[in-house]
Amino acid sequence: MDERQQIGEYLSKRLAELGVRHIFARGGDDSPGIYDLLGRSAALKVINTRDEQGAGFAADAYARTKGLGAVYVASGPGALKIVNTTALASAEKSPVIVISGTASFEEQGRQQLGNRQSNALGMQKRIFEEFTVAATVIDSAETALAEIDRVLAAALRYQRPVYIELPSDLASGLCPSRHKPLIDKELSDPDTLQEAIDETTGLINAARRPVILAGVEIRRFNLQKELCQLAGKTGIPVATTLLAKSVIADTEKFSMGMYGQAIGLDKARSSIESSDCLLFLGTFVAGPHSGFATTEIKPNASLYATAECISIGPKRFENILFHDFIKGLIKAPISPRKLEGIPRPRAPRPFLHGAEGEMVTVAHLLQQINALMDDQTLIVADLGGTLIAAADLFIRHTGTFLSTALSASPGFAVPAALGAQLANPTLRPVVLVTDEAFQMTGMETSTIARYGLNPIIIVLNTQGYATGPSLVDAPYPWHFSKIPSVLGKGIGFIVATEIELEQALLTAKKNTESFTIIDVMLDRHAHNRLRKKLGKHGQIAKPGKRPPATGKKQD
Amino acid sequence: MDERQQIGEYLSKRLAELGVRHIFARGGDDSPGIYDLLGRSAALKVINTRDEQGAGFAADAYARTKGLGAVYVASGPGALKIVNTTALASAEKSPVIVISGTASFEEQGRQQLGNRQSNALGMQKRIFEEFTVAATVIDSAETALAEIDRVLAAALRYQRPVYIELPSDLASGLCPSRHKPLIDKELSDPDTLQEAIDETTGLINAARRPVILAGVEIRRFNLQKELCQLAGKTGIPVATTLLAKSVIADTEKFSMGMYGQAIGLDKARSSIESSDCLLFLGTFVAGPHSGFATTEIKPNASLYATAECISIGPKRFENILFHDFIKGLIKAPISPRKLEGIPRPRAPRPFLHGAEGEMVTVAHLLQQINALMDDQTLIVADLGGTLIAAADLFIRHTGTFLSTALSASPGFAVPAALGAQLANPTLRPVVLVTDEAFQMTGMETSTIARYGLNPIIIVLNTQGYATGPSLVDAPYPWHFSKIPSVLGKGIGFIVATEIELEQALLTAKKNTESFTIIDVMLDRHAHNRLRKKLGKHGQIAKPGKRPPATGKKQD
Repeated sequence: MDERQQIGEYLSKRLAELGVRHIFARGGDDSPGIYDLLGRSAALKVINTRDEQGAGFAADAYARTKGLGAVYVASGPGALKIVNTTALASAEKSPVIVISGTASFEEQGRQQLGNRQSNALGMQKRIFEEFTVAATVIDSAETALAEIDRVLAAALRYQRPVYIELPSDLASGLCPSRHKPLIDKELSDPDTLQEAIDETTGLINAARRPVILAGVEIRRFNLQKELCQLAGKTGIPVATTLLAKSVIADTEKFSMGMYGQAIGLDKARSSIESSDCLLFLGTFVAGPHSGFATTEIKPNASLYATAECISIGPKRFENILFHDFIKGLIKAPISPRKLEGIPRPRAPRPFLHGAEGEMVTVAHLLQQINALMDDQTLIVADLGGTLIAAADLFIRHTGTFLSTALSASPGFAVPAALGAQLANPTLRPVVLVTDEAFQMTGMETSTIARYGLNPIIIVLNTQGYATGPSLVDAPYPWHFSKIPSVLGKGIGFIVATEIELEQALLTAKKNTESFTIIDVMLDRHAHNRLRKKLGKHGQIAKPGKRPPATGKKQD
Repeated sequence: MDERQQIGEYLSKRLAELGVRHIFARGGDDSPGIYDLLGRSAALKVINTRDEQGAGFAADAYARTKGLGAVYVASGPGALKIVNTTALASAEKSPVIVISGTASFEEQGRQQLGNRQSNALGMQKRIFEEFTVAATVIDSAETALAEIDRVLAAALRYQRPVYIELPSDLASGLCPSRHKPLIDKELSDPDTLQEAIDETTGLINAARRPVILAGVEIRRFNLQKELCQLAGKTGIPVATTLLAKSVIADTEKFSMGMYGQAIGLDKARSSIESSDCLLFLGTFVAGPHSGFATTEIKPNASLYATAECISIGPKRFENILFHDFIKGLIKAPISPRKLEGIPRPRAPRPFLHGAEGEMVTVAHLLQQINALMDDQTLIVADLGGTLIAAADLFIRHTGTFLSTALSASPGFAVPAALGAQLANPTLRPVVLVTDEAFQMTGMETSTIARYGLNPIIIVLNTQGYATGPSLVDAPYPWHFSKIPSVLGKGIGFIVATEIELEQALLTAKKNTESFTIIDVMLDRHAHNRLRKKLGKHGQIAKPGKRPPATGKKQD
């Protein structure tokens, strides 16, 4: 038997070799198959979330943090519940391996007879092909290993999700144990690469004030250091999009912080918009309704370089790998400039003692978080007001900020904290989430409790004053601080004043044994300020009706 | 302006004319559109759930209860979150109108430029076409009304979901106010109909012991009375599948109760399997792994009649409407038989006083529920052990049992109780749900609280002894009885003994002001009995590891 291995074993082994240590799932399938094999693998741990949606978001955050993530779903309802999370991973470039167990082909035929919500006609694969760069149904032991190699290579090459469907009989099917994985060996065409670098060098040297707008691909392709080298050597300042926040640390002297239509510093924004040589490096362009829009300035870009296309002015360059291009620019004869007088992100002020009788505002909350953050803090921001608020946080280290700034899929943050902390246990997530978004997926705190993780979850409780799109009806208020009593784990706080917040944050920081949830009651006043900031960009719509009064802390 | 109306208004009006009073949603979209128009309609009420998944399940249960249901989703993440619930509605024949708002086409173009998780290429429609009998993107005011008519007619004709995508500018676009809705006027071909009825009559009259296996379409096409007439007149006994449980009341003298591979009475099962004339009326055939399988006996069916096909032996009859066929059989010269000695479902025993010191078993729990049920009780069963257990409940009235017995989509029950009670406020749902399934969608109790509904939710807490498919890891135990403290509404009980159960059930029955949640701690012993009952049918797999001990009631 030492000459043979099970196909499912091979898949587990390859995932482990590529750095995956945890697979997110929500239980197994009717028939034993790949789920059971994954569970038996010594190198992998199966993490069962409460719902498949949570598994999907967690795997995405894991991939963003560790470079590769994986989610297992049973066929049918299991797989169909992660269509959205896979679409998110696709849009924001997160390499998630979606593994769907299915019944054997023979059994699928019988289920089809049974008119079951069936997969026999390849329905699942058709759907996942919409959001993946490679998809396969393993249908023979002969081709299985090559197919697995092909699909995994695509995930790494494009940093987007892929789909592997593995019928139960094939999961345990035997294949040769000596197999050299096919690794993508794509190379840049040297002449085209040189031409693109020369052209870019010329552009930059001729420009009065070049600016780099760095995107999320810098992180996906692990080019943070190279970007810093490039900026340091050339003296070109760097701003990032919101999705890419933390691809460079705000402590870097060339950092101008965030750029977006409604976020970041005004000075940085005007500096970027007036640049005569705007360099998009690995940047996706956010839509016009996001409030973080970059659409308006895209046509001005002198250079637009991503892993999928490099264009300089009207010219497109094919067959160039993104990292070769970035590394090439570092060595190119770009004339160095002085980094002087560029707008810089505001450094955090020290932690304040809460003022007696003062109600918490978003600005105060953010300042306190900013002050409390340390080298281990990972900010995970959900949507709506929390993301807007979090945009201003000062980033000390690369890779310490997660959000779905492009796709706007609410409910990401709590399961993302789970995924990210498992991916890198030295990080301590601070989750910023609205009441509405918590109500979607926040009960994954159960999974967080199960695995002994310790994020600090801060619920911005707008008490019915939605900061997202319009609501005909207000959300029903929850007593978030009581969730630990349902789970038998965690610490909960309800906070309305600055003094209460101070105490809650300091206790949370010390409580490394479990998660902490802090329900921050924002008053109407605070909401209105947030609304004013973004209202004109369509991000905040009219408030819903007030919910029925049930908590003592409501005004 | 009295000659014109907005397209969105027309859609609202048509839904109301067809009996829809509530639309399930999870908030609006970025740009005002159909969601806002639905919200302004006097005849409709928008019900905002906590997550789109809940909205999808609720709309499905609403459709099953009222004959038609509707769910609104924003494009992108909103729509993609209800792919699974729409697949469920499709598989189990529930006419749900899926309405997706989208940005205007112009804006979609700009979002596409922005590389957003975009809908510009018709992605959503392609996905929903997999699960709907009609799908449309409204793209002009001229064709809008005819398209809406066509799609709504398909939902009614086939009793399956349909998809309407309405860009924001077209939602408020103007169309003529005088428009006569196109109603499906499909008729049976009279000659073919007569031939099919004659052939069926001959078959039955020649048979020694005909049996009807009634399916869910009897309910979907509102043919319960006709089925009773047919059975009453001919003396042919009737059994139902689990999905169709409650299409006839168990009080009917011709009812043999449930049929399924692992459920129902043994005597009924053998009687059905040995019939020489098995008549499938509106029945879907459940797959071999469901434990409720009917696959094995399907090849024996003499008649297989559904709204989509009627076949008698090897012959297929086209162009016959299902209800014409059923009504035709009532008038056909079928010789009446005596209904003697047929197996009958067990009638409920009276409510028992709990015995001192006795731990609750599933059998005892079911008996007590059976005894407490009255004319208003609607049983909503989730998956796993709860559904198996619920299969034995005695049904007093048609339409008082909901489950996803065919598609096996866990997490249905709590949001389904919301949908069903809004559809018919005279019903009082009794929800049977496992701990695992509650952990998926149970926080929709928040929406139940918001709208003042009063279901009794019974959590069969297996404490980590999964009754569903295998789990590498046990679920994390929740203190379900504490959920009312998070919501500020509802009553919670934790129950381990017969006496505690008695008190909880009696209090719950009296508590009509809010929901009640009863956490029934099943001991390992009870689990093993349940497991024994179904283990051989693959429904219950090996238990997971025990969860960490946190509750006093665990053994």
